[in-house]
Amino acid sequence: MGSSARIAVDAMGGDGGLAVMLAGVARARARFPDMHFLLVGDENAIREELRTHPNLSAASEVLHAPEVVKSDAKPSQAIRRAKTTSMGIAIAQVKAGRAAAAVSAGNTGALMSMAKLSLRTMPGIYRPALAALMPSLGDTDTVMLDLGANTECDARNLVQFAVMGAAYARTALDLERPRVALLNIGTEDQKGTDIIRDAAAEIRAAPHLPLEFAGFIEGDRLSRGEVDVIVCDGFSGNIALKTAEGTARFVADLLKRAFRSSIRSKVGFLISKPATELLRDHLDPNNHNGAVFLGLNGLVVKSHGGANAIGIENAIAVAAKMVRDDLGRRIAEDLGNFEAKAA
Amino acid sequence: MGSSARIAVDAMGGDGGLAVMLAGVARARARFPDMHFLLVGDENAIREELRTHPNLSAASEVLHAPEVVKSDAKPSQAIRRAKTTSMGIAIAQVKAGRAAAAVSAGNTGALMSMAKLSLRTMPGIYRPALAALMPSLGDTDTVMLDLGANTECDARNLVQFAVMGAAYARTALDLERPRVALLNIGTEDQKGTDIIRDAAAEIRAAPHLPLEFAGFIEGDRLSRGEVDVIVCDGFSGNIALKTAEGTARFVADLLKRAFRSSIRSKVGFLISKPATELLRDHLDPNNHNGAVFLGLNGLVVKSHGGANAIGIENAIAVAAKMVRDDLGRRIAEDLGNFEAKAA
Repeated sequence: MGSSARIAVDAMGGDGGLAVMLAGVARARARFPDMHFLLVGDENAIREELRTHPNLSAASEVLHAPEVVKSDAKPSQAIRRAKTTSMGIAIAQVKAGRAAAAVSAGNTGALMSMAKLSLRTMPGIYRPALAALMPSLGDTDTVMLDLGANTECDARNLVQFAVMGAAYARTALDLERPRVALLNIGTEDQKGTDIIRDAAAEIRAAPHLPLEFAGFIEGDRLSRGEVDVIVCDGFSGNIALKTAEGTARFVADLLKRAFRSSIRSKVGFLISKPATELLRDHLDPNNHNGAVFLGLNGLVVKSHGGANAIGIENAIAVAAKMVRDDLGRRIAEDLGNFEAKAA
Repeated sequence: MGSSARIAVDAMGGDGGLAVMLAGVARARARFPDMHFLLVGDENAIREELRTHPNLSAASEVLHAPEVVKSDAKPSQAIRRAKTTSMGIAIAQVKAGRAAAAVSAGNTGALMSMAKLSLRTMPGIYRPALAALMPSLGDTDTVMLDLGANTECDARNLVQFAVMGAAYARTALDLERPRVALLNIGTEDQKGTDIIRDAAAEIRAAPHLPLEFAGFIEGDRLSRGEVDVIVCDGFSGNIALKTAEGTARFVADLLKRAFRSSIRSKVGFLISKPATELLRDHLDPNNHNGAVFLGLNGLVVKSHGGANAIGIENAIAVAAKMVRDDLGRRIAEDLGNFEAKAA
């Protein structure tokens, strides 16, 4: 079994701790029987927990890490402990070729900084980007990037995000020619900043890219399922993603409040429970878990800190698909192709 | 009756046309019995429609405008027809002191450009801003600005938006010291762009302002009711507002789909109807209607194009409160106060 089917897991990150992480990895192990795992963290604690997961135990190695990156640690603090923390050691396994991908549910800023410093950006990539899956009304989720790796971006960055996001959508959503749009404050050609208009012109001038360019998209259409990849700078992307999360919770809270407002509506709630559970299921972040850092020499997946075992399983599935499709090579090919024709 | 209690209404703007506009103005007339109206548009059509609203008729004058700004007109086209369109003539009444405020449900870009060109920014204001009310879990709506008047902003612009937004919240939400926050991608001091950090430092250095500075707020807290005014550049604001609108609709669509998924859930839906109607009511844009342009020498209110009569009534109520509180003077005082102490 080569390193290509081995995933390093930061077993200590995440709000649920080791028990939730390993329960999630055990689920992933059942779903991907060829996969092997490097479990990084407190060796004794991991071995103890593995007793309850004999199937996972059979497909895992344990790698001791004496420290854990704290959830409130600054990236600069975390970087100094790259060699002793479970997060840092998990990433180092990817760098050394001993794992094909790393998965962590720990501190996002720390993970981003450590991954960037250790793995470096791919040749030709100016900036890595953080991409995630958002629920939509369409048949599949929608990929959105950048979600916060780069506060400010130029046109060249956005074009590269489009190429990387499309490659990721082909892998994660099994689409041949993903529809890609740039997030903007209007759909007409003259809307937005020079940066966004320049990026649109560059993508439009490259019809050989394996994507369908759909122009600009506004915030109110993000969840309609009309495009597969939404590209933006990390500031706008973070604002949009968090606003969407917050609004979904807000509407759910209002609904709860409304259902509690009378006996009648409480009865209605009980009867409609299967329906509202369908809704909850569709919006549950665990079902869309697994953000990826694109553009690095190695695959790193970030799980929500609050993910449950199903969420962890899904984050590992994201990593498994990227490994299966050799996403790094695909991105390098697409970019090479884009630069060659553009030159 | 002086001009201070007279509101000019672009009777022709809006998707619902004249009938909806006048039905809304008639509702506002009943709510603000001291208010007078200048109804601007096709004179014959307005007089015909007024027959069904005798109470409104008694408190109105009609001003003929031969043209209407089309909903898809570019701002540059609209500006050239400022003297002949109902929107342009309504704004001109404010400029000439014949009305204390103008209200239109027409094309936003056209209204913004015409208002800026005709009324000009207040002394000391570098950029006007578009502010609107967003529903929240709190006791009142939340003011958010800028929502698209300025694609790019510097720190000075954001500080002025904070001062203007606080003045507006005191008027629209009847708050003494509104809590003001800057939209950002994290709450720690070092997060975001230099522009946002500089703006925060300037506001923090002016504790004499009639507002409570709450630092940074992230997209997922916008609707929590924890702050009263959210300040951002027009690009981020437009993305956040539209993402919130789109997500609320998305969740409502999922809920509808879920309720239709079985006989049982259809029955549950019928029983819970009063509850889901409460939710719909809380999210209905008509109940939060009326965006305002702040920082101009004159008050201009933008209604949603698709507003119904209740929505129009609420947009006029926004104008009426600003007139009552002499919002322009308040903003000028606060800004003068801020600049004086800062100097």
